[in-house]
Amino acid sequence: MKIKFIDIEAGKLISIIHEKDAKELGIFPLDRIELINPKTKRKIITVADITDSIVKEKEIGLFKDVSKSLGLKKKTEINVTPVSIPESVKFIKKKMDGNSLNEKEIQKIVEDLSNNHLSQIEASAFVSAVYINGFNLQETIAMTKALVEGGKKLNLNKKFVVDKHSIGGINGRATMIIVPIVACNELFIPKTSSRSITSASGTADSMEVLTKVELSLKKIKKITQKIGGVIAWGGSLELAPGDDKIIEIEHPLNLDPPGQVIASVMAKKVSVGTKYLVIDIPVGEHTKVKTKENAENIAKKFLEVSKEMKIKTEVLLTDGTKANGPAFGAALEAKHAMEILEGKVFDNLAQKSCQLAGALFELTGKTKKGKGYEKAVELLKNGKALKKMQEIIKAQGGKIISSKQIKLSSKKIEIKANKSGKIERIDLTALKEIARTSGAPADKKAGLLLKVEEDDIIKKGQIVFEIHGTNERKLKVAEEKAIKNNPIKLGNVIIEKIQ
Amino acid sequence: MKIKFIDIEAGKLISIIHEKDAKELGIFPLDRIELINPKTKRKIITVADITDSIVKEKEIGLFKDVSKSLGLKKKTEINVTPVSIPESVKFIKKKMDGNSLNEKEIQKIVEDLSNNHLSQIEASAFVSAVYINGFNLQETIAMTKALVEGGKKLNLNKKFVVDKHSIGGINGRATMIIVPIVACNELFIPKTSSRSITSASGTADSMEVLTKVELSLKKIKKITQKIGGVIAWGGSLELAPGDDKIIEIEHPLNLDPPGQVIASVMAKKVSVGTKYLVIDIPVGEHTKVKTKENAENIAKKFLEVSKEMKIKTEVLLTDGTKANGPAFGAALEAKHAMEILEGKVFDNLAQKSCQLAGALFELTGKTKKGKGYEKAVELLKNGKALKKMQEIIKAQGGKIISSKQIKLSSKKIEIKANKSGKIERIDLTALKEIARTSGAPADKKAGLLLKVEEDDIIKKGQIVFEIHGTNERKLKVAEEKAIKNNPIKLGNVIIEKIQ
Repeated sequence: MKIKFIDIEAGKLISIIHEKDAKELGIFPLDRIELINPKTKRKIITVADITDSIVKEKEIGLFKDVSKSLGLKKKTEINVTPVSIPESVKFIKKKMDGNSLNEKEIQKIVEDLSNNHLSQIEASAFVSAVYINGFNLQETIAMTKALVEGGKKLNLNKKFVVDKHSIGGINGRATMIIVPIVACNELFIPKTSSRSITSASGTADSMEVLTKVELSLKKIKKITQKIGGVIAWGGSLELAPGDDKIIEIEHPLNLDPPGQVIASVMAKKVSVGTKYLVIDIPVGEHTKVKTKENAENIAKKFLEVSKEMKIKTEVLLTDGTKANGPAFGAALEAKHAMEILEGKVFDNLAQKSCQLAGALFELTGKTKKGKGYEKAVELLKNGKALKKMQEIIKAQGGKIISSKQIKLSSKKIEIKANKSGKIERIDLTALKEIARTSGAPADKKAGLLLKVEEDDIIKKGQIVFEIHGTNERKLKVAEEKAIKNNPIKLGNVIIEKIQ
Repeated sequence: MKIKFIDIEAGKLISIIHEKDAKELGIFPLDRIELINPKTKRKIITVADITDSIVKEKEIGLFKDVSKSLGLKKKTEINVTPVSIPESVKFIKKKMDGNSLNEKEIQKIVEDLSNNHLSQIEASAFVSAVYINGFNLQETIAMTKALVEGGKKLNLNKKFVVDKHSIGGINGRATMIIVPIVACNELFIPKTSSRSITSASGTADSMEVLTKVELSLKKIKKITQKIGGVIAWGGSLELAPGDDKIIEIEHPLNLDPPGQVIASVMAKKVSVGTKYLVIDIPVGEHTKVKTKENAENIAKKFLEVSKEMKIKTEVLLTDGTKANGPAFGAALEAKHAMEILEGKVFDNLAQKSCQLAGALFELTGKTKKGKGYEKAVELLKNGKALKKMQEIIKAQGGKIISSKQIKLSSKKIEIKANKSGKIERIDLTALKEIARTSGAPADKKAGLLLKVEEDDIIKKGQIVFEIHGTNERKLKVAEEKAIKNNPIKLGNVIIEKIQ
């Protein structure tokens, strides 16, 4: 068929054929066709879109992604043949029918996902089936292995490669405190973090306020080997790329099948060579995991998969009902983390960070059982963790090495209490939403800074939080949202009414 | 944002924005954005594709479908706002979590599906959830109603509006025999049929050999009122359009959740005003429904939904193990149906057709119980059904009114037996595949004609079937497939071997 170049990147492997040719070839919309460049013999499988207008008969429309990958430049003829549905679709159907998948079947699904051989319909059916029917332990392990297999790996050649992972907290950058603490006690922590998806900031967003986070795997290796730690963005490293495809499906549906989440996390840890791991599961109404029972179930599975993958793991259930420090937003959270490292604050975020770091010290035998927390606090208080953090920032190419250097927004709105009372509850989800409305996470200076805590007794007119941001309109909308949704709930002062 | 027109129909409502704007707006790939034409105030919700190359910052790329529906021609500015996920996604999640949906929730899902407000990921999650978790009776009824509500309707103002439906047979055009039989006995049958999806021909494909099948709803009404029957293609009539979206998802996954299939069939029947209905479920290893038990289950649900929708229904389980006549392919099957109407043949297809027509006579009270089949055979044998079929063909605009007028392919390949023996089994699926390889259903003259039946005793060299088609290359490939897969299985002549 003759090529018609379409000067657009579709982001997916799609080709467009005329409905008459589709009928001739027996192709229905979304069926697959294989295209072969007869000169170079390069092949590619694309999904067929069918039209009666974009291309003529005997013509095939190729988006940039496709023509590039076939190495086509000039108008030439290519061979087009229908291909049958990939074998993995049969395995997806098997999972939908309530059966377990074996290692080979899961491997084939991940392979086809990674190579864009599955359509969104098929990929969504897979994720839905895993969500509805669940993964058993063997399947979770197989999925972990399959995800690792398809991606790049980091090999530090060190004995004490450690990592930490938090599942669905609301705010607070524990990672920025834990990494320097453990890195100055002979542990190696090549931490890859995500940017925010639903919160006001992700670790990568906050770290980026201080230094570069888009590092190559080579650079991550070099820095970690030299100074013990790194805090990089994990997004472009191609560790477990099949996982990225799965997340693409999970995000719009807001799904997180536990078996898949565990496999995703563990695959990334295996890929960076983790040997000791602490996992933090904040439990509370505002976090991903709402009940202790649910958290214990997830923890158990993490431990089982860890055992299989030869990672020594400890899971800590933490209190997710309270904010981890007062800051929501990239710069505000970065500043707060630096203040903890500088010894200016020691709040629940500092405490939690030391507990997680301490757990790693005990897991690796760097301290005796029961002495890890103490050691972590010592490294924080004696300034060694701060010094290590400054080394890390510089090694990654940055210059902001103290909390004072972090520039906050010149514009802010103060929200004051409209009556007096005792603060009974702070709605963290509402705070997060206000921070996002103010411009976080894209606007690094946007966010929210709490000025009160639960159980505080406040007076009418007292500032309860500040909203930061650089865009006046967004600040205004955030203010309106703050007033409307009032996230600071005062206890009822009237206990009884007697008439 | 400024518009960049993209001169392509995407077939879906998609717009393209720059990744910096996406970040600013807090939009992730596949999130929804609402576009508003500030002049006309026309609004549309599209799915956002994110790029760093196709459009510049502050620019939005609109495919033809989108710019048309916003009524945009000149380069102008439009307003873009992120919109939250449609409410129906919550209901899809509810179904995924194993809960039942109520009428309103199902209605909202169908509405959003019909209006293209759900992405393929979401639509696939819904169909997968229905497949895995099933629909209860209330949900099936609600789905039927929701599908009807969103589509056009046919109102004949007649008491005896009847219909028939077959689920997943392999070949044979019973509809082309039943419609004229019932139409010449005071029943009204506005039959809408499909084209082939996986078989060698669909009723619409075969009928199109004789006459036009793409008729307007108005014309279908007029013809049926005047002469009692019509055989049209149902595809473009917008009866239950939500159903077409669901089928788009089901097809690539080869899914047919029973609850959904029942709702789809019943919705189309309600839409055309059916009051009496016979459903034919062929049971056999080559048909959709493999076991009698499964067929009985489906039948029971059909009857329950029918009762709710006030349709008097009878379900007949028929023998799906044997071919319905010897023909596979549009023209061959049309010719065979005409030969039955002309009284030249009376085989199992003729018999089955008379049984289904007879069931409608008994359901409507046009004959006494037990006399329907007799009456149908009478109308077939006395030539009245043929005369009615000729009226229908002419009314639809066609001229081919006898089997002799049907032109078959001048090219055919005869397949001969390579040994003698008794035919034990004929592999219908293999025959269908050979027919499709020869060019069916796109090539109306392509297909396969059986020359033998099960239990026939044949000699080596005897013709067992012919392969028809207009494309020499395809005929050749079909012949190779026929020889390789040999669909005519001879019984073992040696019963015992004594040594």
